[in-house]
Amino acid sequence: MPSLFTRIINGEIPCVKVHEDDLTLAIMDIHPIQPGQILVIPKEEVGSVWEMSEASYHALMATVQQAGKSIARVFPDKARVGLMVEGLEVADHAHVKVFPFSTIEEFHAQPGLTNSPTQAELKELAVRLAF
Amino acid sequence: MPSLFTRIINGEIPCVKVHEDDLTLAIMDIHPIQPGQILVIPKEEVGSVWEMSEASYHALMATVQQAGKSIARVFPDKARVGLMVEGLEVADHAHVKVFPFSTIEEFHAQPGLTNSPTQAELKELAVRLAF
Repeated sequence: MPSLFTRIINGEIPCVKVHEDDLTLAIMDIHPIQPGQILVIPKEEVGSVWEMSEASYHALMATVQQAGKSIARVFPDKARVGLMVEGLEVADHAHVKVFPFSTIEEFHAQPGLTNSPTQAELKELAVRLAF
Repeated sequence: MPSLFTRIINGEIPCVKVHEDDLTLAIMDIHPIQPGQILVIPKEEVGSVWEMSEASYHALMATVQQAGKSIARVFPDKARVGLMVEGLEVADHAHVKVFPFSTIEEFHAQPGLTNSPTQAELKELAVRLAF
């Protein structure tokens, strides 16, 4: 069965896109650690970034850097841009979380403990974050 | 004044090396989130991964993937390999944390709350993790 992210990539499940190219997709995370979080996903369906082919991994990390630059631009009042690869929730398809934060508590916040963003909020953010 | 990591790269401050190449250095973290954590550092002294030049960033992320593969090999009983870029402690020199973990609690553990490893333990781990 295709992974959740493959179904998103194939358009079977809707998402709010920030960026797409041949090898990667960047979307707004519906359960962000912090508002403005971008989820970067390889189109290659692979269980973790450690198993990825070199070409796909490099494309993924290039998109991750673009996402980080975009977040830094849109959230100038936040101290840093964080990056996290953890993969417990969706264990069958590699993904990278990129998000703005200022404190160690914000970095380690549990997704969903802050208010979940509305679709309208995600779409508005995606326009500003698009790259 | 050179950053802490530049002084480590220049050999002014000792470290336990796992890997070194022209653009990157990978060392055992003396304050790991979980035992076996590798710290991957670009030789370029730059405040964050988001500001790095393309060549240096790609070299860093290639070393990060090698570190992750090595951790997966040495810690087969751990469920996942985590990756974290946060940068609050050493804010003037980009670095990436790569470490084995099994649970969400282990992923978010505070460095130093587990027992700090001894130099002998770090050196023994570095031999097994070397790439």
